[in-house]
Amino acid sequence: MGGDFAPGIVVEGALEALNESDSRFAVALIGPQDRIEEELRSQATRGLRIPKEHLTLFHAPDVISMEDAPNAALRTKKRSSIGVGLTIQKEGTAQAFVSAGNTGAVMSASTLILGRVEGVSRPTIGAVIPTVKKPSFLLDAGANVDCKPRHLFEFAVMGSVYMSTLFGLHNPRVGLLNIGEEATKGNAVALETFAMLQRSRLNFVGNVEGRDLLKGNVDVIVCDGFVGNILLKFGESVPAFLKEKFLAFAARSLGNKLVASIARGGLRSVLKEFDYQEHGGVPLLGVNGVSIIGHGGSTAKAIKNMIFRAEEMIRKDVNALIKEELRRYHE
Amino acid sequence: MGGDFAPGIVVEGALEALNESDSRFAVALIGPQDRIEEELRSQATRGLRIPKEHLTLFHAPDVISMEDAPNAALRTKKRSSIGVGLTIQKEGTAQAFVSAGNTGAVMSASTLILGRVEGVSRPTIGAVIPTVKKPSFLLDAGANVDCKPRHLFEFAVMGSVYMSTLFGLHNPRVGLLNIGEEATKGNAVALETFAMLQRSRLNFVGNVEGRDLLKGNVDVIVCDGFVGNILLKFGESVPAFLKEKFLAFAARSLGNKLVASIARGGLRSVLKEFDYQEHGGVPLLGVNGVSIIGHGGSTAKAIKNMIFRAEEMIRKDVNALIKEELRRYHE
Repeated sequence: MGGDFAPGIVVEGALEALNESDSRFAVALIGPQDRIEEELRSQATRGLRIPKEHLTLFHAPDVISMEDAPNAALRTKKRSSIGVGLTIQKEGTAQAFVSAGNTGAVMSASTLILGRVEGVSRPTIGAVIPTVKKPSFLLDAGANVDCKPRHLFEFAVMGSVYMSTLFGLHNPRVGLLNIGEEATKGNAVALETFAMLQRSRLNFVGNVEGRDLLKGNVDVIVCDGFVGNILLKFGESVPAFLKEKFLAFAARSLGNKLVASIARGGLRSVLKEFDYQEHGGVPLLGVNGVSIIGHGGSTAKAIKNMIFRAEEMIRKDVNALIKEELRRYHE
Repeated sequence: MGGDFAPGIVVEGALEALNESDSRFAVALIGPQDRIEEELRSQATRGLRIPKEHLTLFHAPDVISMEDAPNAALRTKKRSSIGVGLTIQKEGTAQAFVSAGNTGAVMSASTLILGRVEGVSRPTIGAVIPTVKKPSFLLDAGANVDCKPRHLFEFAVMGSVYMSTLFGLHNPRVGLLNIGEEATKGNAVALETFAMLQRSRLNFVGNVEGRDLLKGNVDVIVCDGFVGNILLKFGESVPAFLKEKFLAFAARSLGNKLVASIARGGLRSVLKEFDYQEHGGVPLLGVNGVSIIGHGGSTAKAIKNMIFRAEEMIRKDVNALIKEELRRYHE
């Protein structure tokens, strides 16, 4: 029931994932039973194959909306798709959870129900961001607003493991988001984190500034969730701003209008890059299991990609690698 | 000698300001005497009027470069244009200082030499940012990386005075940059600042998120210099990123190339909005005097605008208003 178009888009994305999966995995749909069954019938009518042998259904009558306060909602709506979905993972019935629902609720419930990977102080959300080269991975994207250097250091380790495992990068370059390149720059937390990263075995390339984010010279960008959230939301708002300005430009003259109408497609193609959710959801790293959170406006394709990403995280056992890597530092 | 094109552009901008000023003010040019005199001769040759009766020259042989470490440079290069310029203001010979030089050095020297306005704990840099409506004023833009709620509160007061006095806004709307709209959102500093702002007489409209920055629904945006600096530098880097992506789009097909060549002018006009330095420098608020810092790449027009902005800050006595406003809160 998560996201703006549930359950329709969610069921559709799940079926597409199954139909493209060569029976590698099964999907459990979680939500109000009647709504899901209705949706399955409707998808069948539209010609989508229903691979029943790989599909289960878990009844979860409560619905946590996007506006609900996460913790209060989790307390009062015990049988939500978020609560039930993570509980069946905890019990071993499922190995991953994917949701386009209330981000705060998925984060809280994931940490609460699944627990943390050994050595992790704070689970973190990472976001894939576009650059002029390959995409980078920025974390924390908003889960932790007050961070100690130790937390930022753990984010660097988790981000590094994620990028090497899931993006196939050898020894990913790690940068610390800061206000200058020099080691002496930044606030107290940044200064101490810099020193920790430099002493580590990570491929730490130093500070990166705001102006470097889109250059793609690092693979993992570390910051606290306060900065990360503000930055990512700002980035997401750039296309709408440019569209407004472009319309104003078009309105200035007939010539401009013509130019604008010709340029529209190109502009759209360029601006699409700013939608970091194109990559199909952001992983919550550091929880003892797999939990992937999608945008409220996720499409069926995004849901499908989130399921494939979840499968990959299970298959490559990202958590074991995170645990192993952190153990080295704790020793 | 400040900026990438000094002294040429600086002298040119100063002369343009004087020639458009109706003798309202005089300008003191500060730098190596021979270089300035040579530049004045060269400008005269090019036909620019030299209004000698409103022009003085102060010899400052030392040059602080953009790469110099601010405090070390100020110690060793005592007779730089920054040091001399601020000293003659302190002594009453000048009433304002304008520079496109080393930002850190201008900030440090301004606070050190001019001192702080009564009631101000930390001087702050504000930046004018574009929005779909009127420009907003974001502070701190990078002067203070570790802030207490009290500092952020003072930034809000200074920003509010600045926008009402220099942009003619009645009761400017003040927003606190945060990761959610609700009063309960954010890190520890944001939570306490929210409470202080709400108790104040400022027109505090609540939290603003990263995605709201370009919407123009607030006039003053308050954040610490760590977030502010990263955000502003990120914003400044967006045009270059879009240009790269646009070139890649153009390279994909001949049709695309045609579209791109037609759209180029429109895109440039739209992206220009992201250059927050178009507004001619950022004021350092809270110092006991007037100090305006320009981009290293400032044009003559930017220098001219900085001089006019400085004159306006003197004429409207922004510092007296800041002092008066802060006094109310300290009582």
